[in-house]
Amino acid sequence: MTEKAGSPQARTILQQCLHARLQVKPGDDESEAEWVEINRGMVIYVCFFKGAIEDIIPKMVNTLLNLKLCEADSGKYVSVLDLPGSILIVPQATLGGKAKGKGMQYHNNIEKDQGLQLYSSFVSQCEKELALSIKSSENGTIVQHGTYGNRQVLKLDTNGPYTHLMEF
Amino acid sequence: MTEKAGSPQARTILQQCLHARLQVKPGDDESEAEWVEINRGMVIYVCFFKGAIEDIIPKMVNTLLNLKLCEADSGKYVSVLDLPGSILIVPQATLGGKAKGKGMQYHNNIEKDQGLQLYSSFVSQCEKELALSIKSSENGTIVQHGTYGNRQVLKLDTNGPYTHLMEF
Repeated sequence: MTEKAGSPQARTILQQCLHARLQVKPGDDESEAEWVEINRGMVIYVCFFKGAIEDIIPKMVNTLLNLKLCEADSGKYVSVLDLPGSILIVPQATLGGKAKGKGMQYHNNIEKDQGLQLYSSFVSQCEKELALSIKSSENGTIVQHGTYGNRQVLKLDTNGPYTHLMEF
Repeated sequence: MTEKAGSPQARTILQQCLHARLQVKPGDDESEAEWVEINRGMVIYVCFFKGAIEDIIPKMVNTLLNLKLCEADSGKYVSVLDLPGSILIVPQATLGGKAKGKGMQYHNNIEKDQGLQLYSSFVSQCEKELALSIKSSENGTIVQHGTYGNRQVLKLDTNGPYTHLMEF
């Protein structure tokens, strides 16, 4: 499937954090909610569109983890790998929304099973990339991620989110 | 100045919050940092591009405050005015960034004095719109906003951010 020029396969929002905490399993009668958390690093909100294919994942991961989006203590901008920082990946289907009248439509969003496959691949390639980074390994940075399809209950603490949009 | 089709004048990111707290004045030797905060409502991150003009502000405010982006207790989606919720406006110049190699460039961002003017107008029109809403007035919702040009130190607590992108 080919895409029209200008029609992205994936949309990501990047925010810097000092600490972020995300629910990965809601609580119920028998057990408390489960959470994952990271300290200093980057939150990646990600949404895939119809027509997105596996081929974009390596490019996405390489770009997002090597772009100089993070402010180091020196005030200089460095990549999350060079910071070194942890990564929290948040599936966020709402990012694919388009306004129609007063409502939002999500007709361009990828189907759920395909989206889950791309999301899982994105997460595992981020994990591999971080594991390959000596600086990250030495500093104990981690990749955490939300459960695809869940409500993404998020708590975020920043020293300035420096919100960026990147489409692929 | 005319813009090419597809080249937006403004970019906004919307996130739902239960509570959000934003620094509006950094601390120094003589005084502590100053913060504003809102409870349940919507965070609007906003960035203006070169060529943005005052004319887009009423459309932006009308759209963002009336779009059904907020989850009510019933589970139905309603506008922030109908929730009713408060609004935290965060100037976010980084949203105008484009990747060039491993760095980010902000050449399309509006100049600072023009950006401040549009930002101030956006804030005051949001305040007016909220004041006109009977539901909002009765429930004591408020508009708060960051200081243009400052570092936007933000703490965010959500029950799901439902992140949306809207360009104008």
